[in-house]
Amino acid sequence: MDLKEKLQNFLDDVEEVDGEYLKNAQLRLDSLVKPIGSLGKLEEIAARLASINKNLYCSLDKRCLIIMASDNGVVEEGVASAPQEVTYIQTLNFSKGITGAAVLSNHFNTDMIVVDVGVNQDINDPNVINKKMRKSTHNIAKQAAMSLDEAHKAVIIGIELAIDAKNQGYNIIGVGEMGIGNTTTSSAVLSSLLAIRGYEDVRNTVGRGAGLTDERYENKIKVIEKAIELHNPDAKDPMDVLHKVGGFDIAAMAGVFIGAAYCKIPVVVDGFISIVAALLAYRLNPKVKGYMFASHLSCERGYVLAMDELGIEPCLNLDMRLGEGSGCPIMFSIMDAACAIIKDMGTFEEADIGTEYLDNLSK
Amino acid sequence: MDLKEKLQNFLDDVEEVDGEYLKNAQLRLDSLVKPIGSLGKLEEIAARLASINKNLYCSLDKRCLIIMASDNGVVEEGVASAPQEVTYIQTLNFSKGITGAAVLSNHFNTDMIVVDVGVNQDINDPNVINKKMRKSTHNIAKQAAMSLDEAHKAVIIGIELAIDAKNQGYNIIGVGEMGIGNTTTSSAVLSSLLAIRGYEDVRNTVGRGAGLTDERYENKIKVIEKAIELHNPDAKDPMDVLHKVGGFDIAAMAGVFIGAAYCKIPVVVDGFISIVAALLAYRLNPKVKGYMFASHLSCERGYVLAMDELGIEPCLNLDMRLGEGSGCPIMFSIMDAACAIIKDMGTFEEADIGTEYLDNLSK
Repeated sequence: MDLKEKLQNFLDDVEEVDGEYLKNAQLRLDSLVKPIGSLGKLEEIAARLASINKNLYCSLDKRCLIIMASDNGVVEEGVASAPQEVTYIQTLNFSKGITGAAVLSNHFNTDMIVVDVGVNQDINDPNVINKKMRKSTHNIAKQAAMSLDEAHKAVIIGIELAIDAKNQGYNIIGVGEMGIGNTTTSSAVLSSLLAIRGYEDVRNTVGRGAGLTDERYENKIKVIEKAIELHNPDAKDPMDVLHKVGGFDIAAMAGVFIGAAYCKIPVVVDGFISIVAALLAYRLNPKVKGYMFASHLSCERGYVLAMDELGIEPCLNLDMRLGEGSGCPIMFSIMDAACAIIKDMGTFEEADIGTEYLDNLSK
Repeated sequence: MDLKEKLQNFLDDVEEVDGEYLKNAQLRLDSLVKPIGSLGKLEEIAARLASINKNLYCSLDKRCLIIMASDNGVVEEGVASAPQEVTYIQTLNFSKGITGAAVLSNHFNTDMIVVDVGVNQDINDPNVINKKMRKSTHNIAKQAAMSLDEAHKAVIIGIELAIDAKNQGYNIIGVGEMGIGNTTTSSAVLSSLLAIRGYEDVRNTVGRGAGLTDERYENKIKVIEKAIELHNPDAKDPMDVLHKVGGFDIAAMAGVFIGAAYCKIPVVVDGFISIVAALLAYRLNPKVKGYMFASHLSCERGYVLAMDELGIEPCLNLDMRLGEGSGCPIMFSIMDAACAIIKDMGTFEEADIGTEYLDNLSK
């Protein structure tokens, strides 16, 4: 079986989230002692988790954040503010517990699964899973980031890691990354998927990453525009887009989203690169969306475009733009609280309140 | 010393949050291995907590939610969807652990301090602190909710409860409420403080509370407009506004905000009634704002007006409109994560990354 067929089989096996369970969960939520719908997204989260797990009372006690680390050839165009070696150094720093995502993971009882899918240096660290495709993608301003076969392989790596996580007993997965230059590839993928062309429009998909100066920011937009013109990716063919202007990190992250849906485990979308990977997965099969939960509204420009296209809305507005999947552990904690709501709140009956007055309500 | 003088003394003793400490904390945050400012509001929270506590490394391990329960005479105008006795029943339900705020408090390791400041029935429950002013305020559509002296007394009750909480070792306070009809009084207070008059403008401060039908919603707006016309509260005199169209809950909540600032303990603003009380406290002394942290963007109409006027921005966007202070425990958890960031993240030096490249950044 070739890689393309293998990926298609995974995609074909993704099932829609169960609508009957969603309804059951909402009935339970509507019986609880609060105005109907007044817990907003907490209710939506609780209902969807119940449906995914086919169980009204879920637990999110075993949590992991899968971090895809990879380098991007496009950094030679001067699109990033940090030197490329920062990818390597930070990949090792996760297990030292000192990066932002590591601190938040420790704080919220989350295990980190750090994966090397294409870091530009050899990594010999037992805490980093070696799934290296090769050292860095190619420079998208000059050639395709990777071959179509490589793109399929990298996505499948992500799918299989999600399945591994499920088998290890994790009941929630978050998706993060580490890769200098990956806001550039993400913007290129986003522009391509949305069929956005031309300097002024491409600009709306491009942020300042770690904090580029004005001059280097303009250069970044030009590089992305150039890459899109060079490759002319097909907006209707996500794998065409991915292999031409993407990265190993984005590919493997898209794979985790697909894998999570395939094995029915909830998965958290976090930050700009993560939501672009989520959009790519969604374009490959819209059914994956039912398993996705968005953590925070990234202030990297382009996030909102991806969010609107994907049609999901984050719970947190923290003005964050760190990446790494740093918002996932916070989101796990909120989702766990949603589980407590559906499980522990009293019903109107238990609360000694008649429900007659509910008839006065507008919904 | 009369009540007015007593309140003024508390207000006069509130100190501005220490700017030197804020700067020190930001220096520490800027040394951590992340793009400058990339953790957004988590950084702002960490810095402000450090400044309030005059300590870079804070702990939020002892958390309380103070819930002010009271009834409102205005319910006889048909402004609420739930019967008045729900105030009494739910006040007792907090200690049973079955309300939304109770479940979230238990989940996030938060103690509830439930206070009766004016419930319309006798409460004999050792879990409810008795600070009853009297049974319910008057109907603001017909007379002032309370006397000016009562308003001062109710605010001071809140101040003293915040001081008690600090003395009991709590390092963070949240402010919630329970009181059928209190979105009506809150809208009346908000309209008055913003000098908003006339049906169409008052409407922007009025939400559907627990979920009024269209007809009853229009009636609610009319009742509020009528109350404002009747009393003509002075927008520049918060105590005039409070006693004429407020409630015991709002008064005591405003007191908690003032008391928290007075004794230098961070305090969380949650939901519509809470933010109106916070605005009232801010109008009495703008320095209290430095101690406030906003939890979630309530979808009760009027919240955004109060938020803009107060100039604070919440961290959560959960489409919640339950009240009770239900967002506070979630916010405590996020604030605690901010403390972990400033304490546990590595510096660039510890992370083996030179900071030369930071010169390329835009800020």
